[in-house]
Amino acid sequence: MNDGEAGQTGIKADSAHSQLIAISLSPASPLGPRAFFSSSAALPGGALSLRRLPQAASFYVRTSLDVASCEGHKGHKRLPAWRRTQWLSARMAEHNVRTVLDQDRQSCTGDSAVVLHAHLIMAASVGPAADPGYVSVETRPGGIAIVTVAKEPVNSMDLDMWMRLDQAIAGLEADPSITAVIIVSGLKKDVFSAGNDLMELYAPKTTSERYARFWVAQNAFLVRLHRSRLVTVAAIRGACPAGGCAISLCSDFRIMTPEGSMGLNEVQLGIPVPKFWGLLMGRVMGPKAAEDILLTGRMVLADEAKRVGLVDAVVPAEQLLAVALATAVQACKQPAAARAATKLLLREDFCTAWEAYFPTEPSFGWRFLSSPSTIAVLEGAMRRLSSKGGQKKPQQPAASKL
Amino acid sequence: MNDGEAGQTGIKADSAHSQLIAISLSPASPLGPRAFFSSSAALPGGALSLRRLPQAASFYVRTSLDVASCEGHKGHKRLPAWRRTQWLSARMAEHNVRTVLDQDRQSCTGDSAVVLHAHLIMAASVGPAADPGYVSVETRPGGIAIVTVAKEPVNSMDLDMWMRLDQAIAGLEADPSITAVIIVSGLKKDVFSAGNDLMELYAPKTTSERYARFWVAQNAFLVRLHRSRLVTVAAIRGACPAGGCAISLCSDFRIMTPEGSMGLNEVQLGIPVPKFWGLLMGRVMGPKAAEDILLTGRMVLADEAKRVGLVDAVVPAEQLLAVALATAVQACKQPAAARAATKLLLREDFCTAWEAYFPTEPSFGWRFLSSPSTIAVLEGAMRRLSSKGGQKKPQQPAASKL
Amino acid sequence: MNDGEAGQTGIKADSAHSQLIAISLSPASPLGPRAFFSSSAALPGGALSLRRLPQAASFYVRTSLDVASCEGHKGHKRLPAWRRTQWLSARMAEHNVRTVLDQDRQSCTGDSAVVLHAHLIMAASVGPAADPGYVSVETRPGGIAIVTVAKEPVNSMDLDMWMRLDQAIAGLEADPSITAVIIVSGLKKDVFSAGNDLMELYAPKTTSERYARFWVAQNAFLVRLHRSRLVTVAAIRGACPAGGCAISLCSDFRIMTPEGSMGLNEVQLGIPVPKFWGLLMGRVMGPKAAEDILLTGRMVLADEAKRVGLVDAVVPAEQLLAVALATAVQACKQPAAARAATKLLLREDFCTAWEAYFPTEPSFGWRFLSSPSTIAVLEGAMRRLSSKGGQKKPQQPAASKL
Repeated sequence: MNDGEAGQTGIKADSAHSQLIAISLSPASPLGPRAFFSSSAALPGGALSLRRLPQAASFYVRTSLDVASCEGHKGHKRLPAWRRTQWLSARMAEHNVRTVLDQDRQSCTGDSAVVLHAHLIMAASVGPAADPGYVSVETRPGGIAIVTVAKEPVNSMDLDMWMRLDQAIAGLEADPSITAVIIVSGLKKDVFSAGNDLMELYAPKTTSERYARFWVAQNAFLVRLHRSRLVTVAAIRGACPAGGCAISLCSDFRIMTPEGSMGLNEVQLGIPVPKFWGLLMGRVMGPKAAEDILLTGRMVLADEAKRVGLVDAVVPAEQLLAVALATAVQACKQPAAARAATKLLLREDFCTAWEAYFPTEPSFGWRFLSSPSTIAVLEGAMRRLSSKGGQKKPQQPAASKL
Repeated sequence: MNDGEAGQTGIKADSAHSQLIAISLSPASPLGPRAFFSSSAALPGGALSLRRLPQAASFYVRTSLDVASCEGHKGHKRLPAWRRTQWLSARMAEHNVRTVLDQDRQSCTGDSAVVLHAHLIMAASVGPAADPGYVSVETRPGGIAIVTVAKEPVNSMDLDMWMRLDQAIAGLEADPSITAVIIVSGLKKDVFSAGNDLMELYAPKTTSERYARFWVAQNAFLVRLHRSRLVTVAAIRGACPAGGCAISLCSDFRIMTPEGSMGLNEVQLGIPVPKFWGLLMGRVMGPKAAEDILLTGRMVLADEAKRVGLVDAVVPAEQLLAVALATAVQACKQPAAARAATKLLLREDFCTAWEAYFPTEPSFGWRFLSSPSTIAVLEGAMRRLSSKGGQKKPQQPAASKL
Repeated sequence: MNDGEAGQTGIKADSAHSQLIAISLSPASPLGPRAFFSSSAALPGGALSLRRLPQAASFYVRTSLDVASCEGHKGHKRLPAWRRTQWLSARMAEHNVRTVLDQDRQSCTGDSAVVLHAHLIMAASVGPAADPGYVSVETRPGGIAIVTVAKEPVNSMDLDMWMRLDQAIAGLEADPSITAVIIVSGLKKDVFSAGNDLMELYAPKTTSERYARFWVAQNAFLVRLHRSRLVTVAAIRGACPAGGCAISLCSDFRIMTPEGSMGLNEVQLGIPVPKFWGLLMGRVMGPKAAEDILLTGRMVLADEAKRVGLVDAVVPAEQLLAVALATAVQACKQPAAARAATKLLLREDFCTAWEAYFPTEPSFGWRFLSSPSTIAVLEGAMRRLSSKGGQKKPQQPAASKL
């Protein structure tokens, strides 16, 4: 799916009376096509299906439907235009788009002309990136892949990184020979990731629109990871705050080094913990214990993390990858399709609710990011990071990036 | 509710303008009437009520409504036929059916003729079975009943067994002198149950339609057990995989012998763990700990089961029934109606979601059962079981029936 | 918001074609305006917004909409009147009321005249109470408030007390200098609260309508407490059954004295545990462990309460307030807005579901309260309490008030 293929990618209505919806996809980054489109078609009761999109492509579409008119057989009735907006994960594209239209048809049956407006928020290619850069993928015997993230000095997570991660996992999911993935830091320092790049959150240097794209990109990746068909292991060497913690919580297993620390420390920077990140921690260690940690923004050290169930094991750094690999091998011993289906069944309600929350968060979060107090806190944090040359001390989570 | 009574059982509309819906119930098995029916009536805005059905009867109805026409006072308008399907637990029959129609009326108000098609999936009689067979009921002083299941050699669960269990519990619920029930294995071997009969899952020997009935029958029983007004105790002697584990998880208390083992080991046979069985285990021991066990299909031995909260107590086999009885007596000391209502309130959302999932699972599950790889795994399991003369070793869950 | 201001408080439609809905609020108690109103307006597709209501006012509105007529452009169609009822928390008033009407418009589009009937169940003033009485508020340096409840002999909770508590917390929430609140008993005896006043539950001395108001008042307070922007600490000296336990469970932290005991012991009086009180206990200690306690109505003593996570700390009575203050100070160290937003995000789904349950419970609960067996149990409890001069022994929860 590159620029040249984009013309063949499309949404097509399968009703006999429907018109083809032309979709123009244009690449939004060197990583591959990430496109915005807007299309419409008259669909007299037909169902849409997304065709010719790569199986593993991840994209989120905001749709709205206008019922332009509704004329009865013997009389006439004009419904005022109404619209309904929903974001879909089109990972299971045909199914989901059908669902939406089925629901809509309940309200707009008849001969009404239904005009669909679809707005694609994000799509990630499954092909190899033009420049894989700091996110590298290595495969080991037995179908286990290792994704190494090495963006010096602290793996700060910007829009580009979240999209590279999404592309890496999507690529592995599309490869039938792969059954497990281990995510590991390739940094010189003992840091899994320092969390989101503050420049994505610092209002004077970004926009609410950029923030919305950033927010969807990171959470789209996290949802993908959480319901991945792959066995997923986070191998955590060192500090793992905020966004790094979210990646870990979305994985099936978490292995940490003794020097490690983990937490969603957003509150310390004056930013709310993303709702579903907090709920995810509650699923791992119970809602009350999670709240106690989340509301103070406290980082949990390795020993406590093991005791409260936040990590599965604590092992020395030199054994980290070996234990992660052994964990993956052990987890892969049973029939893969049944295991993946069971995992999906157990997590699907949570992930569906998370995706339904996508359109809500950006405006809510931006209210905090654009407030003078949050801007001041972020400026303080950036000054401290700058004076340390971008370093980050694991035990001082107040200075963490998010 | 036998064949003779079936003519009196019916769905009747309580609107003055409504027509009586005649329902013909015909017995589907020697255990009592299990009927399929299809009926319709013009219901101009009226509400349905299910009448003359035994209080404890358990049945699931798939309904669909057709709005055949809708004519206004001064004009005319014809809505195209639409349908909506919902499965109901008619345990609280009047309430639920009203609800469905109330919702429907929001969409089909007016003078439209609403045609109801109802399709009864399963109904269990509350009377004594013509042949109680291997599921026997004994009552003890203090209103405690013991349901013994003894279908040699391993209590393999087929459609017949799930319906007998449903009938047994329904009968006890309908008897006001009964306040608690203990479910126990009467097998010669140390086996609570080896789980579902593989013949119900082996695609070449069943059909997708039979599987759907089987699936609804087992889960209808499990939901009934989970929200029963009775105090429920599973007394588990020996191996308790899959379906037997589901019965235990739906009970209020689980008492196990030291030789016992418990788990939902479906993944080992290449079949997904039924969604709500897995969620149920998560409610007992936390979602993360449950996932770790479920995704590997691991059986948990007695000591660990006690430690992680999967069972309430581990006691020698010779004390099993005495401890189960004492547990039931203790739990029955408080006012029964308040206790049952509290239990129902705490579990109703879960059970309602579970029932709403009934129509979804069979087609999803059948995709796995009819796949060549699952068929091959089941054939291997059946060969191993056959070579052992139907025996089952608790410590070898890979050979378990489901 | 007093009697004089009530005339300015109103619901106003923001559509150009809408009529102003006049709302007459009249004070219902010396504590401030608690009003019932009924209003209507023709709203051709407009959205309502609640204006000029104090930010912190808590009120619950039961609304119903009548579609009186629906006339099309070229034809005519008359929809029969239908109604839909929903309770709203108007804390985020504008948002919620819009939502309701948006949903309604889906069903009643067109030129129909939509008649809104709104019935305000409870509104609490944010100003100082005319007579604060036995609920006193004291503020400490650092923005920490202490709410002391001292209604001798056992802080029995009647409608008046729940409304005073709601008013006290609402007042603190409206004061930007306050960041935390500690709730403590000022009784002579070691009792946090003996729970609801039996006279509110004893059917011969109350009415179903009074009970409905009582039920909404207490749960409206509890929901407010649970999602309060304030850090909340329950400092529990002595017995803490039922309603007192509910207050504790809604708080962020629970500190208890060694003589303390806690539980939702409703079942012992023949009354179901309120659904969301029970679910709340499940969130703190897990659903299975909570059910075991709830279904027997057992009171948990301090040591066990600490062990199972029902309380955060057990400290001698002379240190109780100091530890509660230290807990509040510690919890307040991080940015308040981010902490409050995170807390709200984590609890909002639970609180929203709880509020949606408000209209359901009163008729359900009244069925129990008006049954001869519950009346007899309550009469026995009142006789025992009367013979002890209103005393309550913590270890005898069967004699507890609710």
